[in-house]
Amino acid sequence: MARYQLGQVNADGSPATADRGKAVRPTLCLLMCEALGGDLQAALPAAAGLELLHNFTLVHDDVMDDDETRRHRPTVWVVWGRSQAIDAGDLLHVLATLSVLRSGGNGAAAALVRDAVEVLTEGCRLVTEGQHLDIAFETAANIGVADYLDMIARKSAALLAVAFELGAIFAGNDPATRAACRAYGRELGIVFQIRDDVLGIWGDPAVTGKPVGADIHKRKKTLPLIHALATAGEPDRHRLRVMYGSDGTAPDVETTMAILKRAGSRNFTENRIRKHAQRAGQALCHLPASAWGRRHLEAVATYIATRDR
Amino acid sequence: MARYQLGQVNADGSPATADRGKAVRPTLCLLMCEALGGDLQAALPAAAGLELLHNFTLVHDDVMDDDETRRHRPTVWVVWGRSQAIDAGDLLHVLATLSVLRSGGNGAAAALVRDAVEVLTEGCRLVTEGQHLDIAFETAANIGVADYLDMIARKSAALLAVAFELGAIFAGNDPATRAACRAYGRELGIVFQIRDDVLGIWGDPAVTGKPVGADIHKRKKTLPLIHALATAGEPDRHRLRVMYGSDGTAPDVETTMAILKRAGSRNFTENRIRKHAQRAGQALCHLPASAWGRRHLEAVATYIATRDR
Repeated sequence: MARYQLGQVNADGSPATADRGKAVRPTLCLLMCEALGGDLQAALPAAAGLELLHNFTLVHDDVMDDDETRRHRPTVWVVWGRSQAIDAGDLLHVLATLSVLRSGGNGAAAALVRDAVEVLTEGCRLVTEGQHLDIAFETAANIGVADYLDMIARKSAALLAVAFELGAIFAGNDPATRAACRAYGRELGIVFQIRDDVLGIWGDPAVTGKPVGADIHKRKKTLPLIHALATAGEPDRHRLRVMYGSDGTAPDVETTMAILKRAGSRNFTENRIRKHAQRAGQALCHLPASAWGRRHLEAVATYIATRDR
Repeated sequence: MARYQLGQVNADGSPATADRGKAVRPTLCLLMCEALGGDLQAALPAAAGLELLHNFTLVHDDVMDDDETRRHRPTVWVVWGRSQAIDAGDLLHVLATLSVLRSGGNGAAAALVRDAVEVLTEGCRLVTEGQHLDIAFETAANIGVADYLDMIARKSAALLAVAFELGAIFAGNDPATRAACRAYGRELGIVFQIRDDVLGIWGDPAVTGKPVGADIHKRKKTLPLIHALATAGEPDRHRLRVMYGSDGTAPDVETTMAILKRAGSRNFTENRIRKHAQRAGQALCHLPASAWGRRHLEAVATYIATRDR
């Protein structure tokens, strides 16, 4: 089941050529390690562990959200049932920690291994907290912009922060550099999620492959909507509350978009992207990265803030 | 939710005086550490982590098994729903690792902390494998005695092995002593589970608080039943297969007990207890425990093999 989730095998155990995901987190971990002049070989098991941890969260998320498809294939719980999927997720969680512990096999000192396991595990703690808030928000009455940002900082941004901090551990393990990596990853992670929110409503269907206003169809309460629910004029707020109430019919895309426009929610959302991207840039200034590394880290930040899909 | 599971608070967050469980594993961890002349303070965070890990497995098991009551209270999923319970279990898993990592705060060297995290995590890997087999056995056609012993060695015995090995880590971390602790815990864990199987069928209701043949009512395929299914004469095997088939009605207790008697399944099961208890005793011989420690470890083994409830 773990290997199926990772795209290595089909459900019957035969070798697969399935989509294995983008491996964003381990790639960024190794990029940061290289940018800081660190030992890529020593960082490899930790980078792999981070990808395993990410996949553990996906397997459990799919059970919790009843999602039946992941990377164009049936999700683990659809193939093997919910009990086995919960257990397979637990195994991936275990394998993630074991992989980071394997850093020792590359000659890394015990203190580095301990620090790497701690960073991975603290990051995972934030993800479980974010997931808790996300589930709780589904039935909560009033979610403010600050609540939402707090939730995505944990659920979405924590593992990007882990990616960069792990890179720094295997590149000298300097506390100030680690703190800057954490801040850089956290801000970029928030940017990534808010950009996702923008694309979910205003993305170009020809580029994203999703319908116009995809997140409106799905009744997702992302940042633009939370902003409008909190700040629009009373008639618009009332309309939104009714449309996003519990009767289950999809909100009207055109009406919702018009309300978001009147409330200035797109401007507000794109300003937040700029603000967090700026903070990421400031964190980057504190990193003793090579010129090569800085160029690539800046390119990553620009891509995350401006991507069209 | 984590604190509710641990019996520290009620569902509304108020302080609870609920049953917090017997804390068998951390107690045995500290006993072994003391028996080997180790540093109890240094072992405490690891012992606590083991109890957190055990509770993580309980929260997820209750979701998987649809169990609605645990320690005389509604289970976490009954109170907060399945999604939050899966997430709360994941958090307890995280907190277990973090607790073991805190051993460093007591001045333990990084290598000890790394080894302790590894032992905990490898033990957890075995538990997830055992859980996988247990779920798979529910729908499997032919489970043999060896399959069953392999499953309980992982699902039930692994965390007892972890308990003793963690004790040894903080008492000198000698590889041979650790291996003996692992063997001792594994054999005692198997004894514990098989004794449970005996009590589930032949336990005295006045002592166990459960009805006669409780596990027969529940259609549980424990060792005596698996033995009978594999070795009884053909008419009896046929009767058992029909009674334990998929029609869902509870097997007849008297008929089942008579079949178990004819197949010699009680004798077989109690011989297995003796065999594994003997192996545990051999492992104990290889432990450099104090006279005080040996006396208590022997008392633990005797209790586990002969307990009446």
